[in-house]
Amino acid sequence: DPQHLLLFLLFLSPPPSPQSGRAEYRAPDASFTHLAVHRQTGEVFVGAVNRVVKLSAALLELKSHVTGPVEDNARCYPPPSVRACAHRLESTNNVNKLLLVDYTGSRLVACGSIWQGVCQFLRLDDLFKLGEPHHRKEHYLSGAKEPDGMAGRGPKGGDSRLFIGAAIDGKSEYFPTLSSRKLVADEENNDMFSLVYQDEFVSSQIKIPSDTLSTYPAFDIYYVYGFSSRTYVYFLTLQLDTQLTQMEAGGEKFFTSKIVRMCSNDTEFYSYVEFPLGCTKDGVEYRLVQAAYRQKPGRRLAQALGLGPDDDVLFVVFSQGQKNRSNPPRETVLCLFTLHDINLAMRERISSCYRGEGHLTLPWLLNKELHCIHTVSHCSGSAPQGSELGPFVGEEWRTEQKEMCLSVSCSGVISGRG
Amino acid sequence: DPQHLLLFLLFLSPPPSPQSGRAEYRAPDASFTHLAVHRQTGEVFVGAVNRVVKLSAALLELKSHVTGPVEDNARCYPPPSVRACAHRLESTNNVNKLLLVDYTGSRLVACGSIWQGVCQFLRLDDLFKLGEPHHRKEHYLSGAKEPDGMAGRGPKGGDSRLFIGAAIDGKSEYFPTLSSRKLVADEENNDMFSLVYQDEFVSSQIKIPSDTLSTYPAFDIYYVYGFSSRTYVYFLTLQLDTQLTQMEAGGEKFFTSKIVRMCSNDTEFYSYVEFPLGCTKDGVEYRLVQAAYRQKPGRRLAQALGLGPDDDVLFVVFSQGQKNRSNPPRETVLCLFTLHDINLAMRERISSCYRGEGHLTLPWLLNKELHCIHTVSHCSGSAPQGSELGPFVGEEWRTEQKEMCLSVSCSGVISGRG
Repeated sequence: DPQHLLLFLLFLSPPPSPQSGRAEYRAPDASFTHLAVHRQTGEVFVGAVNRVVKLSAALLELKSHVTGPVEDNARCYPPPSVRACAHRLESTNNVNKLLLVDYTGSRLVACGSIWQGVCQFLRLDDLFKLGEPHHRKEHYLSGAKEPDGMAGRGPKGGDSRLFIGAAIDGKSEYFPTLSSRKLVADEENNDMFSLVYQDEFVSSQIKIPSDTLSTYPAFDIYYVYGFSSRTYVYFLTLQLDTQLTQMEAGGEKFFTSKIVRMCSNDTEFYSYVEFPLGCTKDGVEYRLVQAAYRQKPGRRLAQALGLGPDDDVLFVVFSQGQKNRSNPPRETVLCLFTLHDINLAMRERISSCYRGEGHLTLPWLLNKELHCIHTVSHCSGSAPQGSELGPFVGEEWRTEQKEMCLSVSCSGVISGRG
Repeated sequence: DPQHLLLFLLFLSPPPSPQSGRAEYRAPDASFTHLAVHRQTGEVFVGAVNRVVKLSAALLELKSHVTGPVEDNARCYPPPSVRACAHRLESTNNVNKLLLVDYTGSRLVACGSIWQGVCQFLRLDDLFKLGEPHHRKEHYLSGAKEPDGMAGRGPKGGDSRLFIGAAIDGKSEYFPTLSSRKLVADEENNDMFSLVYQDEFVSSQIKIPSDTLSTYPAFDIYYVYGFSSRTYVYFLTLQLDTQLTQMEAGGEKFFTSKIVRMCSNDTEFYSYVEFPLGCTKDGVEYRLVQAAYRQKPGRRLAQALGLGPDDDVLFVVFSQGQKNRSNPPRETVLCLFTLHDINLAMRERISSCYRGEGHLTLPWLLNKELHCIHTVSHCSGSAPQGSELGPFVGEEWRTEQKEMCLSVSCSGVISGRG
C-alpha cells in the first residue's frame, strides 16, 4: 500500500538521488503493488493495478503505461489470447505481480495477473511496450490473483537468467513454485522464459507435489522479496505452517516465514535450502514477513555489527503472530539480519544434518519426516569428492546430494535484531 | 482371485479351444491378477504376483516366467534401476497390473507394480524376456500398488497404439489417468510408450487435476476392463463418488462405476465421454464393477436381443452397493449390456446437452457444474462444419469441441439386464 511505498522510498534513498528529505507521489486512482529503483539514475518504476508508472528520482511522474483492464477469465488455460475459451470473458483488472529491471536489455519486466500471469517488456526510457510473449506454457508465470505472492531476481552482470518464485494457488500442474528461466534479447524469441535446464528427470524448477496439496489443500508459498548476494540467490517467503494448521479445510490457517537459498549457478535446483526467519519483541513473536530489502551497511552500521563494507545486511518488516496472512496485523517490527549470520545458521544446520544428527523437516516438499543420513556433501561451491559420497559416482552423486540439500530444514528460527 | 479366473475361463470358452466342459489350473504359490487369451490358439496367459504363466487352451502349464521379488522402494522416482535413491530398498513383490497380447509383435506386454510400473515384453512362444524399458518417464505407467486399477486396449489390426488407464494413487504429476501410447517393434527404442501426440497444450493423455485431488484427496479412477468396438475404445472404471463421499479424509468412501468412451483415432483426447453404469436386482443397487467381457452374441442371444451378428454385447459383474471398493461385498450380479444401448444413451445425453438442456457434470475433471452450451458438434466421426460452431475456425473449434465433449456426463444410470 502507499504507506509502505513511502516508507521504503525514504528508507532506501538510492545513492544517486539528488533529493534529500521528503518527497511524495500519489496516484489518484491506482493502488501500487511493486516498485523498482534504477541503480544508476535513481528513477523509480511503480507497478500498480492496470498501470506501470515511471517516476523521476524526485518522484515526479514521467510516464504512465496502461496494462488493463483486459478481457479474461482465470479458468481459461491457455489464456483467451491463444485459444478460444468456453468460459465467459469479463473485463478484468491487471494487477502487477512482479517488476524487475533488466539493465542489459534496458527494459522493465512487468508481470501481471491476467492471462495466467504473462509479462510485458517495457522500454526503460519511455515504457514503450516491446513485447508480451504469451503463446507458450513457460510464458505463464502463475494464474494466482494475489499481487503479493511473486518475486524475482533479475539478471546480474553478464548473466541472462531470471529466478522467479510464485504463489500458484493450487495449480502445480501448470506452474512451478520456484524456477530459473532464460531472459533473451528478442522479446518474441521462443526461448524467452524457458527453463534454464531441462532433462528427463531434472529441470530448473521446483513444483509443489500434488500429495502435499492433497494433504494441505491451502498450501502455497508466497514470495515477498528476492535478491542475490555473493554466489547465492535468496527469497523471503511466507508459507502455510503445516505443523500448526489443522488439515481440515475450514480451520484457522497459520503461516511461517522462511528464507530460501540456492546457489546462483545451480541449474538443477539441487542446492535448495530453506530456513525459518522471525523476530521477537517484548516476548511477542513476529513471524509474518511483509517486506524486505538487502543493502550494504553504511560505515557506522558496519562498525557496530563488526561487518566489512562488502557484507550484506537484510532489513525485514514482520507483522505480529502467524495468522491473517492476507490481512496482517498492523503491529509490525523492522528487523536487521546479516547475511553472514543467515549463512552461518544454514551451514551449521546442514552440517549437523550431514553428521547424522536430528531429523530433517521440509514438510511441503517431502511431506514426511526424514532422518538425517550420515554423509558429507557440499551444496554451495566445490564439487564433493567421490570417496566422501559412498557408492555414488558421476551423475549419481547429484541425486544423493539433492536428497541431502532438499532435506535440510530446521525447527529453530533465526532471530533478527529488532 | 482364482474363483473369478475359473468363472471366466468357463464362461468365455474361446472359439478355437479344443476343450469342452471343465478344466482347472491352480498354481500353488501364486495369486492371479490378470489373464489374456490368445485369439487364435486359445492359449491362456496369466499374470500373477511375481510371475507370468502360459497355459495351453486345456489349462496345462507350458511356461512360467519369474518377475519378482525385486529390490525397490515406491518412493524412489525415478526407480532405483535408473538413479541411486536415498530411500531404503527392500525386496518387493512384483504384482502384475496389466497383461496384453501384441499379436503383431508376437509378444506379451506384462506391466508390474515395481519401479513405478514398468512393463516387460515377453515372447508369446516361450515367455523369453525381450526387454523391459525403464529409463524414461513414459515407461512408468503408475506407481500405485493395487493390482486391479489398470487396464489397457492393445493394438488392433495394423495399429500400433496402446490405450492405458491407470489408478495413480494421487500422483498426477507423474502419471496420467488415461493415455494413448506408441507401441514400437524394438523394445529398446526410445519411443516405446511415448505419447501418440504431444504439442504445447494438448497431448494424448488426461491427467487428474491437482485441485480435484486437493478437494478429494482420495480421488482416483480404477480401470477394470478395456476393449474396443467399431470406432471406439471403452473402459469400465470405478471412481470415487464425489457427490456421496464427504470431503473429510476420515469419512466413508462411496464409489460409482462408469463406462468411459473415446474415439479410437482421437489422438488429442477431445472425444472423452463417461457415463454411469449399474444394475438393479430386487430393488437393490449393484454399482461396483468387478469384471467385464465384451463378446459377439451367439445366434440365439442375438435373436433374443434383436441384434445383428456384428453387434457387441458386454457382460459385467457388479458387487452390491457403492462401498468397500477394495473388499467388495460377496453379493454380485452378472448383467448384460448391448453396446448399441450404451452408445445410444451417450448420444442422447450429448445431444440434449448440445441443445442447451440441463447441467453438465464431470466432477473430477472440471470440479464444477457447467451449464450446457447451445451448440452443435460431433465428437465421434465426421468433422463439424465451421458454420455450426460459431466463431471458431481451424484449430480453434477443437477447443470448443473439447469443452463440449469433456463436459458431458449425466445423472442417469444405464441399467443392464441382470
